[in-house]
Amino acid sequence: MAEPTRHPFDEALELTQAADGLLHGRTTPAYANMVGPFGGVTAATLLRAVEHHPERQGEPLALTVNFVAPVTEGDFAVAVRCVRTNRTNQHWIVEMIQDEVTVATATAVTGRRRDTWSDTEIQAPTAPPIETVPVTGIPEFIAWAKNYEFRFAEGAVPVEGAGEVPGSTTTLWVRDRPARALDYASLAAICDVFYPRVFLRRGRMMAAGTITLTTYFHAEAHQLDAAGDNYLLATARGNKFHDGYFDQSGEIWTPAGELLATTHQLVYFKD
Amino acid sequence: MAEPTRHPFDEALELTQAADGLLHGRTTPAYANMVGPFGGVTAATLLRAVEHHPERQGEPLALTVNFVAPVTEGDFAVAVRCVRTNRTNQHWIVEMIQDEVTVATATAVTGRRRDTWSDTEIQAPTAPPIETVPVTGIPEFIAWAKNYEFRFAEGAVPVEGAGEVPGSTTTLWVRDRPARALDYASLAAICDVFYPRVFLRRGRMMAAGTITLTTYFHAEAHQLDAAGDNYLLATARGNKFHDGYFDQSGEIWTPAGELLATTHQLVYFKD
Repeated sequence: MAEPTRHPFDEALELTQAADGLLHGRTTPAYANMVGPFGGVTAATLLRAVEHHPERQGEPLALTVNFVAPVTEGDFAVAVRCVRTNRTNQHWIVEMIQDEVTVATATAVTGRRRDTWSDTEIQAPTAPPIETVPVTGIPEFIAWAKNYEFRFAEGAVPVEGAGEVPGSTTTLWVRDRPARALDYASLAAICDVFYPRVFLRRGRMMAAGTITLTTYFHAEAHQLDAAGDNYLLATARGNKFHDGYFDQSGEIWTPAGELLATTHQLVYFKD
Repeated sequence: MAEPTRHPFDEALELTQAADGLLHGRTTPAYANMVGPFGGVTAATLLRAVEHHPERQGEPLALTVNFVAPVTEGDFAVAVRCVRTNRTNQHWIVEMIQDEVTVATATAVTGRRRDTWSDTEIQAPTAPPIETVPVTGIPEFIAWAKNYEFRFAEGAVPVEGAGEVPGSTTTLWVRDRPARALDYASLAAICDVFYPRVFLRRGRMMAAGTITLTTYFHAEAHQLDAAGDNYLLATARGNKFHDGYFDQSGEIWTPAGELLATTHQLVYFKD
């Protein structure tokens, strides 16, 4: 009997514990970006490295990933250090290394959740039902984007000749392609599926890349299980664009209106 | 002639390079919180340690501080590592250590800014003129708050018997007390002046503390100079409260409507 085909996301995130104490992995062509891999898969890899750690307790609460140097296609190692275990949470420092050069750093917090008063204060964006929004592409030369189904409700990738627009909000239904049950790693990656907000504002593409990405995970494991392989509603907007940088904030929602993650990043651009 | 009195903020941030390669400092009673020092002053200290580094190039762009363990009153050391120097930016890892225990970690990005297309997409909050909003206190037992003048336009600290409210937005005019010319370190601290949003929603105080704090600096040095020692308009709101945690997002503006920083944090609470 043939082995079941692994999902390309799981292939990209495969890590092997080696005798040097590091986790070893390899970038995959499926998640290639213009230069190196999709930042979302790098973020997911560093989070997965924490999840794999034998001392890890609790679920991911927060992740900050710094894109320090271009990640090149090929082998990498991940060093995970548990900085501190508290009663209810743990703090982590993670580094991705290629040829003895640190190419990405991360800090993460994992922790136990306990039932308390709760409320979601921000509002989910409005979007037409999933099936009424056509699946649209991201430019063909972006390999990683082929691993997602994008249904843009607002703020699709600007086409040739698009003019400037006054707002940088993109709202889309998105899921892994092929469909895959949601977990913290794939949620971390989905937090980075927004193409650079400056493209939308300026109506054209230009050099741009995430410098640092922070995600707060609001989903408990059972909520991820319930989300399954369905679409998620992802929305992001830029806050301030200036001097070659902009920051954006975004949220990831279930179709039922549960907020799974809030995510922020600082991006450089050359206009 | 008597020496000019140093500002308490500068006293709190004093760091001395020692033979062990670490920067040595000491918490000051002026910035004490319920347990250990005000998180904002810890964030400012870690940023200042990066600013002090002889290899540092460019201005602060981003800072993530993780509050790993309670900081105790007394001596601490700060280890600063320049992970990478790129053409236009640098990546840093910073640790605060007390008695060989890491009590805070940070990653920071510094970089050169260059003139590009710019736009501030988010709107400044509306607030009455500074002089029409009375200076109000934070409860007396919070020592650090005495180092700020708070003029709450919206969402002041709930008083005894306050009920629940549906929104967690606080907007205030704030500046150092005594007044002090703004710099990146003091801006980093001001990003953490918001009392826990859950107090406002629930109408009462409870145990709460920041776990991780991320700030994006949008101000160039000349904008900080122009801001001087005037009040800043600070606003923050919670996004989702659940399972003992909430996240908040905020912005710091000049009276003229320039956005100096956007700031996000994840906070634990016990209700």
